[in-house]
Amino acid sequence: MPAALALSPVANALETPWSDRYAARVQGMTSSAIRELLKLTADPEMISFAGGLPAPEVFPVGEIAAASARVLHDHGSRALQYGATEGYRPLREMIVRHMDRYGIAVGPDNVLITSGSQQALDLIGRLFLNPGDHVLTEAPTYVGAIQAFASYEARCLTVPIDADGLRLDLLEQALRAGAKFLYVLPNFQNPAGVTLSLERRRRLVELASHYGTPIVEDDPYGQLRYEGEHLPPLVKLDADLHGCAYGERAFRGGVLYLGTLSKTLAPGLRLGWVVAPEEVIGRLATAKQAVDLHTGTFVQMLAWETARGGFLDRHVRRIRKVYGERRDAMLDALARHFPRGVEWTRPAGGLFLWVTLPAPLSAAGLLKDALAEKVAFVPGGSFYPNGGGDACFRLNFSYCRPEVIEDGIRRLGGVIARRLEAAAG
Amino acid sequence: MPAALALSPVANALETPWSDRYAARVQGMTSSAIRELLKLTADPEMISFAGGLPAPEVFPVGEIAAASARVLHDHGSRALQYGATEGYRPLREMIVRHMDRYGIAVGPDNVLITSGSQQALDLIGRLFLNPGDHVLTEAPTYVGAIQAFASYEARCLTVPIDADGLRLDLLEQALRAGAKFLYVLPNFQNPAGVTLSLERRRRLVELASHYGTPIVEDDPYGQLRYEGEHLPPLVKLDADLHGCAYGERAFRGGVLYLGTLSKTLAPGLRLGWVVAPEEVIGRLATAKQAVDLHTGTFVQMLAWETARGGFLDRHVRRIRKVYGERRDAMLDALARHFPRGVEWTRPAGGLFLWVTLPAPLSAAGLLKDALAEKVAFVPGGSFYPNGGGDACFRLNFSYCRPEVIEDGIRRLGGVIARRLEAAAG
Repeated sequence: MPAALALSPVANALETPWSDRYAARVQGMTSSAIRELLKLTADPEMISFAGGLPAPEVFPVGEIAAASARVLHDHGSRALQYGATEGYRPLREMIVRHMDRYGIAVGPDNVLITSGSQQALDLIGRLFLNPGDHVLTEAPTYVGAIQAFASYEARCLTVPIDADGLRLDLLEQALRAGAKFLYVLPNFQNPAGVTLSLERRRRLVELASHYGTPIVEDDPYGQLRYEGEHLPPLVKLDADLHGCAYGERAFRGGVLYLGTLSKTLAPGLRLGWVVAPEEVIGRLATAKQAVDLHTGTFVQMLAWETARGGFLDRHVRRIRKVYGERRDAMLDALARHFPRGVEWTRPAGGLFLWVTLPAPLSAAGLLKDALAEKVAFVPGGSFYPNGGGDACFRLNFSYCRPEVIEDGIRRLGGVIARRLEAAAG
Repeated sequence: MPAALALSPVANALETPWSDRYAARVQGMTSSAIRELLKLTADPEMISFAGGLPAPEVFPVGEIAAASARVLHDHGSRALQYGATEGYRPLREMIVRHMDRYGIAVGPDNVLITSGSQQALDLIGRLFLNPGDHVLTEAPTYVGAIQAFASYEARCLTVPIDADGLRLDLLEQALRAGAKFLYVLPNFQNPAGVTLSLERRRRLVELASHYGTPIVEDDPYGQLRYEGEHLPPLVKLDADLHGCAYGERAFRGGVLYLGTLSKTLAPGLRLGWVVAPEEVIGRLATAKQAVDLHTGTFVQMLAWETARGGFLDRHVRRIRKVYGERRDAMLDALARHFPRGVEWTRPAGGLFLWVTLPAPLSAAGLLKDALAEKVAFVPGGSFYPNGGGDACFRLNFSYCRPEVIEDGIRRLGGVIARRLEAAAG
């Protein structure tokens, strides 16, 4: 097995000329290990449950091609020129209408287009975080967020999750410890697939407001619900609590909402957005200008041209159907092929579910055997900022077709069974 | 006049919850003032010499549209999916061949694709700079570089330029003061339009090598030469000096080379690159992953598909012709319309020239009158990290057609003449 799979920090002894801070920044960055893992999954015989990849067969290639031709024919000079740091205004207006469906009244000046949600996390870190600051996160949480906050030398304080999301009974003591903000994925969380219940959402917003702690609400999967009722986002509940979402008052709390087109349209366009008070958007835009001037004009116009007129809504309905079937296929296969004692979550949406192995198995150990059987997943440790999760791993169910899911889960079940037998013997 | 034109820092009293470092980061960020200025130039009656915009009429819209159709038809699923942080390999290989023309032997692992050159500057700042570190720059220099380095709380130490570029006679004492790296634009510098002579290039590389100071060579305009001979880039001269460009040795000096497609193909794609030793590329890629995962897959494939087969070379020849004519038109108009006592540079390429007003005129004062006459430019102060340049301003000659250049320079000459009369009276 390649040594890179050890999921350890990438940096060893760092000396000049690198920034001293760089050492801190790469702490906990398991990124390169995951990158190495994802490279292995390029093997066409590998069944990969490891990535967070949308299914390529649902990409609306024809519609995007037609939209590209229209954009370049009608507005080619504009599409290929420099643009505003804040983003293409019609796209920002489309996002405003999208937010309005959730009952969130904002204007285009509350929206910043980013180069994927990952850039939003980076810019938020840049704007808010001093070295040594605390950020509250779920444990486990999105590995890219851990990386982004670590790169600003912040320390993650973690709050455990259960089947209903963030453990609210443990949140208050964490809030009391003081944090620059709370980072949370309320819908079909990455990696665990759990969803924050309505009751907990209300209580979360009240507590955060009480302690004046801003919330960064990351919602990449919110539209990908396969069962049950849509739950109001935190940004809406916060608006209800205060009677206004983004008033004139200075920003001393409240919710920054992050959205993306990566899971609904196409990740290869690298388009995300932040919804926030105008004061925050202005500061984020100033930071973004130093970082990359602006997000690509052409891809923004292309996304708008593709999405408009109701196409994206129809397309999301199609994705929901395809991914819902794959989730069902995986849950069904897990029930049939995984040995007794293994547990997993039952996501109502999104791309991932979360498996917990019985003692004494470790996911990192299991991965070695699984790769030999040509099945890949991401061990749980990567998703814990401060350690933990060794018995857990993440499975993606959006990328593989149902028959491949069946095959992969069968193989994986066999690997677990053999590991359990070896441990018992 | 809007107050935003005062070109002062954007931040006033900064309090929590913002990062303390944010205050330092926005110091000297005249970004929002320039953004405001560029917004004014959206007035269709405004003649803008202010931006650094390529001429939209030379964008190869038809070729890009055809390439887009081919990419999406042949490789749609790949183009719309997540991609490698390092970039699309065929594009990196194309850049390797491009570098080979300059006699620089590198491989694809020496190339990182960035979201425009601006992102390369940000990533280099992130990797190298500690708060309080020194960066050597030309004075004046590219405002986006000042912003990028300031955002990492570095201090710019400046070395003046003359008609042959960086003043080598003043460089050594600056190198002795100690700097993390030297940032330099050897070809048709932004903002001044001057080019570093061959003799100075050789001496610069020797001195930097002697002091072990890395050079960041920013070359957005290198291919846009309208007269004279191509001069070897610093990265080539450094390779000649050491007998190898990017060896196995740890990085303790040498040249990082930055290129971009913004001035040759289209800025709205946001595509740039860094050429550097593998060790540096690996670290930059780790940093980039936390920042935006990767640059858009589709635009990278689109650029490659458009550029390949010799198209980009033919296109660059066309741009050279168009911009060369515009440079000539501006130099001609300046000679006829600007009052005696005003001086300007005569760039052999690029997009800009640099005007110096006679005492007691200031460029910021002149701008007010010029905007009233519907002509815009950028006052020189923005390009000086530590103050200065008040009598200077930058003129862009790539964006406006020759007849518009004539009209704008005539108006501007009139404004200067009236200011001089008022000062004399």
